[in-house]
Amino acid sequence: MAKIRVTVWNEYRHEREEEKIAEVYPEGIHAQIAKAIGCDDFEVRTATLDEPEHGLTDEVLDNTDVLIWWGHMAHWEVSDEIAEKVKQKVYMGMGLICLHSAHYSKVFQKVVGTTGNLLWGMNKQEIVWNVNPIHPIAKGIPTHFKLDAEEIYAEPFQIPEPDELVFMGWFETGYVFRSGCCWRRGYGRVFYFQPGHEEFPVYYNENVIQIIKNAIHWAAPVETGYVKQWGAPCIGGDFVPDGELEFFKK
Amino acid sequence: MAKIRVTVWNEYRHEREEEKIAEVYPEGIHAQIAKAIGCDDFEVRTATLDEPEHGLTDEVLDNTDVLIWWGHMAHWEVSDEIAEKVKQKVYMGMGLICLHSAHYSKVFQKVVGTTGNLLWGMNKQEIVWNVNPIHPIAKGIPTHFKLDAEEIYAEPFQIPEPDELVFMGWFETGYVFRSGCCWRRGYGRVFYFQPGHEEFPVYYNENVIQIIKNAIHWAAPVETGYVKQWGAPCIGGDFVPDGELEFFKK
Amino acid sequence: MAKIRVTVWNEYRHEREEEKIAEVYPEGIHAQIAKAIGCDDFEVRTATLDEPEHGLTDEVLDNTDVLIWWGHMAHWEVSDEIAEKVKQKVYMGMGLICLHSAHYSKVFQKVVGTTGNLLWGMNKQEIVWNVNPIHPIAKGIPTHFKLDAEEIYAEPFQIPEPDELVFMGWFETGYVFRSGCCWRRGYGRVFYFQPGHEEFPVYYNENVIQIIKNAIHWAAPVETGYVKQWGAPCIGGDFVPDGELEFFKK
Amino acid sequence: MAKIRVTVWNEYRHEREEEKIAEVYPEGIHAQIAKAIGCDDFEVRTATLDEPEHGLTDEVLDNTDVLIWWGHMAHWEVSDEIAEKVKQKVYMGMGLICLHSAHYSKVFQKVVGTTGNLLWGMNKQEIVWNVNPIHPIAKGIPTHFKLDAEEIYAEPFQIPEPDELVFMGWFETGYVFRSGCCWRRGYGRVFYFQPGHEEFPVYYNENVIQIIKNAIHWAAPVETGYVKQWGAPCIGGDFVPDGELEFFKK
Repeated sequence: MAKIRVTVWNEYRHEREEEKIAEVYPEGIHAQIAKAIGCDDFEVRTATLDEPEHGLTDEVLDNTDVLIWWGHMAHWEVSDEIAEKVKQKVYMGMGLICLHSAHYSKVFQKVVGTTGNLLWGMNKQEIVWNVNPIHPIAKGIPTHFKLDAEEIYAEPFQIPEPDELVFMGWFETGYVFRSGCCWRRGYGRVFYFQPGHEEFPVYYNENVIQIIKNAIHWAAPVETGYVKQWGAPCIGGDFVPDGELEFFKK
Repeated sequence: MAKIRVTVWNEYRHEREEEKIAEVYPEGIHAQIAKAIGCDDFEVRTATLDEPEHGLTDEVLDNTDVLIWWGHMAHWEVSDEIAEKVKQKVYMGMGLICLHSAHYSKVFQKVVGTTGNLLWGMNKQEIVWNVNPIHPIAKGIPTHFKLDAEEIYAEPFQIPEPDELVFMGWFETGYVFRSGCCWRRGYGRVFYFQPGHEEFPVYYNENVIQIIKNAIHWAAPVETGYVKQWGAPCIGGDFVPDGELEFFKK
Repeated sequence: MAKIRVTVWNEYRHEREEEKIAEVYPEGIHAQIAKAIGCDDFEVRTATLDEPEHGLTDEVLDNTDVLIWWGHMAHWEVSDEIAEKVKQKVYMGMGLICLHSAHYSKVFQKVVGTTGNLLWGMNKQEIVWNVNPIHPIAKGIPTHFKLDAEEIYAEPFQIPEPDELVFMGWFETGYVFRSGCCWRRGYGRVFYFQPGHEEFPVYYNENVIQIIKNAIHWAAPVETGYVKQWGAPCIGGDFVPDGELEFFKK
Repeated sequence: MAKIRVTVWNEYRHEREEEKIAEVYPEGIHAQIAKAIGCDDFEVRTATLDEPEHGLTDEVLDNTDVLIWWGHMAHWEVSDEIAEKVKQKVYMGMGLICLHSAHYSKVFQKVVGTTGNLLWGMNKQEIVWNVNPIHPIAKGIPTHFKLDAEEIYAEPFQIPEPDELVFMGWFETGYVFRSGCCWRRGYGRVFYFQPGHEEFPVYYNENVIQIIKNAIHWAAPVETGYVKQWGAPCIGGDFVPDGELEFFKK
């Protein structure tokens, strides 16, 4: 079986600008995620905001099955053109995993169709609950796990009703969150996962990493029974043919 | 506009058997809900388990637009026949509001198609979050409200993915819950709402009562453009007629 | 009760450029829809592509409760700025009704998060089926109605799983379509309705008009229990307050 | 990898009582399905109504991963006890595939929570459309395929909004149907698939068989990260433990 080609995209600013973040992620969040998810099933590369084309050249995107996205302080420095390319790739089948503050990234907003508005607050203990244990993304995950410190993300979270809700988050100061949400968009699959504040070693947590690995498997493009189409082809005026429609023939 | 005919059904055992419950609801939970929701829009009656046919005679059910259900310690004393009748009424358009421990009632399980399994625990503070503020059931409800004491109901809650999730609950000992959930079943609407443990004056809380009132409006049967059918009529072998199908003609 | 302020937006090109279209809609599709939906409940105005700012100035958008959109041959002449404004308005509560070829409009794509890809073909008879008779948009609509001629719009229709599917379309040459679909986005509601090819007097059909009127009522903004927020306010590090959160106070 | 243990249940009356049906399925629909889906991935057995306990003894159910159900003329001869057992098995993780007239079976109605009401009519050509090509059940299926003759099943089909709609059906006399629908119930997965009238060799059609095979893979029970629970265990009054909850420990 071919390996799933994963690109871990990271804004990579906090880690270079703030010492205490650098201590947690000395080589960047992307490097830690890439390392932690490393396994025989995946071929992993990374890309960051300040590379040319944010590291997301056509060559990279054309060879990405699943794109992981972490961004925060510089969402608006991501070019509209690249964000639009990512959106189109997802609609044509590339998986997209948006982590933590990516709720406010251009790619999440554009792909899913949402503001991503929410409440946020000071770092507190979080308990993540697995409410959909038969979902592929919940494979191997217990009923719950704790994160000693995580930035509060709280409802009301302005998102389309998820196709499937997998995780819910509890915060000690009284807040709750839909922490793991799935959507289908075009031929692609999107997973939003809330944990991952830059100040804490969340991407060293084995449950968090297992969830990301599960999500990669779940979001990887699938072979469809007909050619994936971009566009609105005309099928003319005749009765549906017995065989495959012209534009979808393999 | 005709009034919505509401029947508040209550098991009515705790209140008669336990003094401390009787202190909270001296005339029964049903009586308190009936009183609290009283308004010009509704015509309210009550029914209880130990009445003949549990108070749900054909005459009562035929004249009920929305049925509210509270049960707990005697779910299995509800006759299968009555539960089945209620299910059929809902499928034909009667609204159903299941409160608190009704997650385990025969009517909830049968109508929705679920076990209603969940975790439960000792009474704690709950915060109820309004995550879908444009939903009719959330009308007038703030972002959140607190209940000083409520029995813990916790995820994993084994329910079909709600058509719409309206409320989420937070409990101080680390648990979360999908506290307000909507489903459509047949021609009917179902709302499950978690608050309402018998030991606490939850049905005196103005937000709780407002939510129940909103849910009654939301769940009330609607006039459809064709006759509501029970069954699977044969439409023969001809092309669809220009006018209404025979079985659905008004 | 205040009237619902409806703005009917139309590209208004076909009607001015093609004689046979002008015969069907001499004053434009927008004028016909505006006339046909006219009633005491609505205050209707129109706007078209070639007006300054496409007729959608801030003043107009600020005074629109529900926006109806018909566009086709000039989707890409709609400015990104206006499309973005419309999107934000919807996310803040304005209703959006996308008609027919608006499946490919910038506003539909941006708001819902989709390509809107589909198949299309020569004009044929369509039968529209009402599969969700208790939905507010289906009020008064029979099981089905026929359109003597309508442009074929066919599956696969590339849309997010609708929150609610209300209508399905049948075409005589073997095609089917999800013809009436609902989504919630932010504080707003979106309805896509497929009938309405410019060559046929579809917007004179009483069922089509009834559906649009129903959709206006359904999509109209609602008063929420807390202030509609744009943004991601910080709630600090304290425990949830007893009263309303600062940013949502009315 | 362990084989998926499939039990094909069939009412097996039509084939024994009507000569023309026996010509299509001389050994019964169950035998044909069992033969057609045969492959290294599955271990297939069959069961029929007139066997003791309908062939669904505890031993059989305990060793069934996915149950396929075909019934029609004798739905009501299926004992409530067996139907209830099947429901509980599904809620605990067994996959359920309901074929054709099983829309009216006790197991479908109980498990999903629905009437299964629909319209039906004389045999006509059907075209099945694949509207969700990335769904596992659509793997390898073209945009559409034709069935020369199939009993008409038509909307309005009274079912809960499917979690995922995979196939839509078109019938030459003007009717449409949601022909392939998915639901999650408890720890189990349910797929309803409409083709399969007893008078026609539908279960010899390679696309139909491929879909059933795909559905078996999709519906097979999955290993969850915690012990599948039946019931509502009490979690007491303490704070959520660091490790797994007592009742869910593996």
